[in-house]
Amino acid sequence: MSSIKIQCKKAHLATRDMARLSTKVKNTALKDMAKNISSNIDNIIKANEKDIHFGVSNNLSKALIDRLTLNKKRLDLISESLITIAQLKDPTGEIIQGWTMANRLQISKVRVPIGTIGIIYEARPNVTADAIGLSIKTGNSVVLRGSSSAYNSNLAITDILKKSAAQNGINPEAIQLLEDTSREGVSTFVKSKEYIDLIIPRGGSSLIQTVVNTATVPTIETGVGICHTYVDSAANLSQALDIIINAKVQRPSVCNSCETLLVHKDIAKDFLPQAVSALKKLGVEIKGCKKTKMIVPDISTTTKNDWATEYLDLILNIKTVETIEDAVNHIYTFGTNHSEAIISDNIHAINKFSKEVDAAAIVVNASTRFVDGGEFGFGAEMGISTQKLHARGPLGLNELTSYKYIVQGEGHVRQ
Amino acid sequence: MSSIKIQCKKAHLATRDMARLSTKVKNTALKDMAKNISSNIDNIIKANEKDIHFGVSNNLSKALIDRLTLNKKRLDLISESLITIAQLKDPTGEIIQGWTMANRLQISKVRVPIGTIGIIYEARPNVTADAIGLSIKTGNSVVLRGSSSAYNSNLAITDILKKSAAQNGINPEAIQLLEDTSREGVSTFVKSKEYIDLIIPRGGSSLIQTVVNTATVPTIETGVGICHTYVDSAANLSQALDIIINAKVQRPSVCNSCETLLVHKDIAKDFLPQAVSALKKLGVEIKGCKKTKMIVPDISTTTKNDWATEYLDLILNIKTVETIEDAVNHIYTFGTNHSEAIISDNIHAINKFSKEVDAAAIVVNASTRFVDGGEFGFGAEMGISTQKLHARGPLGLNELTSYKYIVQGEGHVRQ
Repeated sequence: MSSIKIQCKKAHLATRDMARLSTKVKNTALKDMAKNISSNIDNIIKANEKDIHFGVSNNLSKALIDRLTLNKKRLDLISESLITIAQLKDPTGEIIQGWTMANRLQISKVRVPIGTIGIIYEARPNVTADAIGLSIKTGNSVVLRGSSSAYNSNLAITDILKKSAAQNGINPEAIQLLEDTSREGVSTFVKSKEYIDLIIPRGGSSLIQTVVNTATVPTIETGVGICHTYVDSAANLSQALDIIINAKVQRPSVCNSCETLLVHKDIAKDFLPQAVSALKKLGVEIKGCKKTKMIVPDISTTTKNDWATEYLDLILNIKTVETIEDAVNHIYTFGTNHSEAIISDNIHAINKFSKEVDAAAIVVNASTRFVDGGEFGFGAEMGISTQKLHARGPLGLNELTSYKYIVQGEGHVRQ
Repeated sequence: MSSIKIQCKKAHLATRDMARLSTKVKNTALKDMAKNISSNIDNIIKANEKDIHFGVSNNLSKALIDRLTLNKKRLDLISESLITIAQLKDPTGEIIQGWTMANRLQISKVRVPIGTIGIIYEARPNVTADAIGLSIKTGNSVVLRGSSSAYNSNLAITDILKKSAAQNGINPEAIQLLEDTSREGVSTFVKSKEYIDLIIPRGGSSLIQTVVNTATVPTIETGVGICHTYVDSAANLSQALDIIINAKVQRPSVCNSCETLLVHKDIAKDFLPQAVSALKKLGVEIKGCKKTKMIVPDISTTTKNDWATEYLDLILNIKTVETIEDAVNHIYTFGTNHSEAIISDNIHAINKFSKEVDAAAIVVNASTRFVDGGEFGFGAEMGISTQKLHARGPLGLNELTSYKYIVQGEGHVRQ
C-alpha cells in the first residue's frame, strides 16, 4: 500500500471517533490550537524559512514567495481564525427537518459529518490551519495535500495542531498531511474512494481540471471566477463607478474580483470616459470591444480569448451591450458560475438578471468582492464552490456536513 | 460531434427556457402528459411488444422480460405517477434562508433548478416517465440513457411526453432520449461535463461502478443496498419477527430489503428458532455463522463473500453477535450506507446505533422497506442516494434542485 493510501486509511478509521466528539471537546481543542500556534511562532517561521530558501533557489516567482511567506502578523491571523472557528455554532446534530407520516412513522433529518475530507491546495500555509480547524469543528477527518514547496511550513503547523488535538482526547490520526507531494500522488489521492468522501481542490484552473478529470471521489470545484459587473441603463452611475473600482482594484488576485465590465449602450457615453479614466489612474489596463473603443479610443482591443480569461491582475475587459439580454448572453457564454453583479435602480432589470443569470451568487448594487464566507457571516470558508451539486458559493461549516435520516416506528411493517 | 453530444447540447441549451417556466405551465403539462399516456396505451403497448419480441429472441431472463413488460395496469400507474408529481409543491423559487449583515447587505438563498440531469438506467420503461416528470417539475432538462432492450418502449413514451410538453409551450428539446444506447456511448455521456450538471446511475452495482469510475460529470450513486436488521437484547421479539419477515420477504428484489440479520446472543436462543422456521416457511434460504448454526443447525454456512452480497432474492444471512458494538462493527465492514435497522426497546442501544452507524437512514423498530421516497412522503423519487454529497437517501424533488445566493446592496463596496 502506498504511503498516500496508508495515510488516507488512517484518517478514514478515525472518522468514527470524530463523529462521537462533543462540541465542548472540539472547541477546547481549537482554542488550544490557536494558543499553540502563537507560542510556537519561532519554530514555524524557522520551518517556513527552509521553504522560502528552497523556493528562492528554485526561482519561484515573487508572488508565489509572498504567498508562501509566514511572519508574526500572518501567524496571528491563523491563530485568530482558529479562535473564530471555535466560536461558531457546531452544525452537527442539528435536526434539519422532521415530520410524522399518516401511519405515525416519525422521520427526522439530522446533520452529521461527511467523514473524511481531502484538500488539495497550493503553497498557502494558512490554508493548512483553516482546513484543519473547519474539519475538526464539523467532526470530519481531513487529509491535506499541500504543495511540496510549502511542505516544511505545513508540517510544522500540522504537528502543532495534531499535538493540540491529542492533548484534548481527539484522535490525531484524523489529521493527515500527505508526505508524498508528487504529481502522480494526486492521482492516487483522488481515486482513494474507499477512504475519502469528498475532495476539494483549491487553486488554479489547471489543478482543478486535473482533479475533476481524474477523481473517482466526489469533488467540489472551487474558485475559478470570471466575474462580470453589468451597468444597466438605469444605474446610479456614481455608485457604479465606486463598485467597479472596488471589484477590480481592491484585491485583483482573488476569484471574486471582476474581470469584465458590461455597459448598457444608453449610458455608455456618460459612464465610460469617467470609469476608464478613474481605473487607469489606479493602474488598471483596459481592453474593450469596438463600440467601447468608439467612446474611449485610448484602450487596446479585446480578443475572444480575453473574455474567457481570469486575469487575477489589474486588467479589465469592457463590452458595450445593446440590451440587458446581451449582457445575460455574454455572461452565459463566458461566465464561470461564480459571482455576477448588476448595477441598476430598475426592479425589472434586477429581477430579470437575478433569475436568468446562472451563478453561485447574483450581486445587486454591490461589489462582487462580497461573495466570500467571511462577508456572508460564515466565519471562515473552505473555498467558493462554482458547481451546483451539494454546495454553491462560499463553503462554510454547514457545507462540510451531510445528513442522515432517523426513521422511528413502533413495529411498523410495510403493506 | 457525436449524436450523444448533440443531444446533450440541445438539452443544455433548453435549460434557460426551463428555468423561466411558471409552476402553472409545468403542472398543466404534467397533467396533459398523464392524459396522453392514457389515450395512447395501445401505441405504447405495440412499441413495447417489439422490445419484448426482441428480448425473447435474445434470451433475456424471465425477470428482465417481466420488468420490461408494459400492460394497461402498469401504464395506468405511470399516468397516476405523473399526476402525483403535478400535485406536489414546486420547490424552485423557495427562499431557503435569508439574513442581513451588520453592513446592511441582504443575503438570500433561493432554490433553483440544477440545469441538465442525466439518467442511466436499465430496462424499466416506467423510469422514463418518472424521470421526465420529476425533471419537468423541478425546471430541469433531462437526458435519458435507457437500455437498448427497452428502446422502442422508451421512444414511444418520450414522444408522447415531448409532444405534451410542446403543446404547453415547454421547449421539447429539454427532454432527450439518447439514440445511441451502445456501451461506449455511456462513457461519452458521463464525460459531457460542458452540457450535463448531474448524472444519476440507476441499476446494478456494476453499472454504478462503471459510471462513477469514468464520469467527469458529478454523479449521485444510488441503490446498492446491503441492509442489516439488528435485533437487540432488549428487543420486543414478536415485533422483531414481523419486521424481519417484512424486510426480507415483502419485496426481496429491491435495494431497501434486508440481506443480513444480526441477533444479540442474549436473545438468540429464543429468537432464532422461531425466526428461521417462519422465514423458511416463506421460502427464504437461510445462511448463518457458526454461533447461529449451534442454535439452528439446519442451515448452510455463510462465507465472507455472503456478508458482502446484495442478494435481491429470498436468501438471508444470520449472524449472532456478542454485543451491539459487534453489530455496529459488522455493519461498518459490510454495509453500503443505505438503510440499517435496530429493533430494541432500550433507548441507550437505539441512541448508540443511530449515532454510530453511518447510513442514509437508520430505522428504529420498523422495516428497512420504509426507506423510500413514497413512504417518506416525497410523492416520487429518482432513486436512493448512498453517497454523502448533495443528497442522501430518497431523491425527491428538493434533491433535484440547487440554490443561488442573491446579495443585495445599496452601492456597497468592500473595505
